[in-house]
Amino acid sequence: MQAAISVNAEGPEGLRFAEVASPHFGPDEIRVKVKATALNRADLLQTMGLYPAPAGVPSDIPGLEYAGEVIAVGSRVQRWKAGDRVMGLVGGGAWAEELVTHEREAIAVPAELSFADAAAIPEAFTTAFDALVLQGGMTLHSEVLIHAVASGVGSAALQLCHLFGARAIGTGRNEKKLARAAELGLTRSIVVKDGVFSARVKQFTEGRGCDLALDLVGGDWFAETIDAMAIKGTVMLVGLVAGASAEVPLRSVLAKRLRLLGTTLRARSLEEKITVARLFEQRVVPSFVSGQLEPVVDAVLPMAELEPALQRLAGNDTFGKLVLTW
Amino acid sequence: MQAAISVNAEGPEGLRFAEVASPHFGPDEIRVKVKATALNRADLLQTMGLYPAPAGVPSDIPGLEYAGEVIAVGSRVQRWKAGDRVMGLVGGGAWAEELVTHEREAIAVPAELSFADAAAIPEAFTTAFDALVLQGGMTLHSEVLIHAVASGVGSAALQLCHLFGARAIGTGRNEKKLARAAELGLTRSIVVKDGVFSARVKQFTEGRGCDLALDLVGGDWFAETIDAMAIKGTVMLVGLVAGASAEVPLRSVLAKRLRLLGTTLRARSLEEKITVARLFEQRVVPSFVSGQLEPVVDAVLPMAELEPALQRLAGNDTFGKLVLTW
Repeated sequence: MQAAISVNAEGPEGLRFAEVASPHFGPDEIRVKVKATALNRADLLQTMGLYPAPAGVPSDIPGLEYAGEVIAVGSRVQRWKAGDRVMGLVGGGAWAEELVTHEREAIAVPAELSFADAAAIPEAFTTAFDALVLQGGMTLHSEVLIHAVASGVGSAALQLCHLFGARAIGTGRNEKKLARAAELGLTRSIVVKDGVFSARVKQFTEGRGCDLALDLVGGDWFAETIDAMAIKGTVMLVGLVAGASAEVPLRSVLAKRLRLLGTTLRARSLEEKITVARLFEQRVVPSFVSGQLEPVVDAVLPMAELEPALQRLAGNDTFGKLVLTW
Repeated sequence: MQAAISVNAEGPEGLRFAEVASPHFGPDEIRVKVKATALNRADLLQTMGLYPAPAGVPSDIPGLEYAGEVIAVGSRVQRWKAGDRVMGLVGGGAWAEELVTHEREAIAVPAELSFADAAAIPEAFTTAFDALVLQGGMTLHSEVLIHAVASGVGSAALQLCHLFGARAIGTGRNEKKLARAAELGLTRSIVVKDGVFSARVKQFTEGRGCDLALDLVGGDWFAETIDAMAIKGTVMLVGLVAGASAEVPLRSVLAKRLRLLGTTLRARSLEEKITVARLFEQRVVPSFVSGQLEPVVDAVLPMAELEPALQRLAGNDTFGKLVLTW
């Protein structure tokens, strides 16, 4: 099979397409013909040698999400047969014509969705669903602060807020991208300059602050995020775009009895990943059929354009996902 | 009734004993004749004007815990009658001959305990129980890091670790006080110099780190505490002795998927306080009768020695609680 191989930590320029052996699969696993994949910031880091693949996945083939067709199943597989349409997250190896995954990690793709649309779903929507709902406890009328609301995860979080009856406030640095988020129904947005936003969050919430924050930013923004929270609020720390360290006002954390949760999907155990995949299939996927949720796709490009697509991701002016098809 | 009144934020020197009116009580409340109270660092702060009493409690009478005898009950009270022995937490007002509390916040004092011993229980053991068990999820074989293990809350936490089958590691700056903690069964202790302890914690836990930390310290120690945690560990932030702000390695919080929870008892709503009091009575108090738990009392002094007792607390060389009796 063909795969995009990352060599020598040279960044996107170091990627080469090569013929490699199809991966073996165990009795509980399925082999998937990848029809489409989507790009993530983590891929970019991995090509630069900054985010090594976990044990058990191809170390030299990046790619964290896919949509495709089942082409072979292990001897104990119960959920799938050849020809079924699936999507999902993998620890790596999605930038290849074929990949192998545990049968319970794969998620059924509804007939209404194209492979290109499906490939834009797993990472963004699973991350947002897990952080906001499963860990963050988002519920009806929760006030939710979404940093980088125009990002893949951010725009998924925005839609999940609406789906679950929560109230979103979105931030970003780019006015144009925030305008795109408005098309997805964002009515309360903050163009952040110099990392200042908590006073505006308090205005939006009549002084109370937010119950939940989806923080893709960290760094310089973190103390403001703490300040923007309501009593007993939860900060889900999902990304560190603004920096990997922060001066934190511990007195506010204590006095407001805040909950700060760090989270990442990739490093989890099989059982944790399966749990999220199954809940996601049950509770979230049907809303893509009903139209309440929509994959946010910036562009669909052929796999041969992987390198320029990665450069575009690095340039930070995409809205939604960059999808690549074989 | 007599009460210790804090005036003009002058610290312990500003305290005066004065005759004041007994507090009124509502239909769900009880009036308690206070037999003993115990000192807390928060009292010290309150006398200096740094920790104002919450709404609904006497603003000028400090005192957060008591043991005493019920002398009158409201018309709807079901749990108590005059003569019953009770202990508990109050938002303030315990440095008086009488106080008023909701009947469901009061906790029965077992016949085996003196009032002086009982007064040493509520703040230390409720704080530790709530943080470690109710919020922190401590269970059998949890590895638990207890900062300031020789403090009132710390020594209570140590005993609760043993009671719940968890494994304690205790820190402190004072070697003599850590030796006292060893008498309570602490076998793994760290004398902390310059805020360094995480390497030793990792040695104690065979490289894994701790599942749970009870952090009474904050400040300069916080980044080391983060470093000392195992994957998916929980840091309960209960105090800020070392500083109210800290540089936090967010990357570790994210990569280890840590949970940081700020907590304080005093600011809670009635329903939260009642919940903790009822669970504490059911799950913890019986172990004071069986002897598995023991109040840690540094000294029992007459109420007239309140001011020197506070100075002693400020001097930071007590082990366990300073109890004052009327």
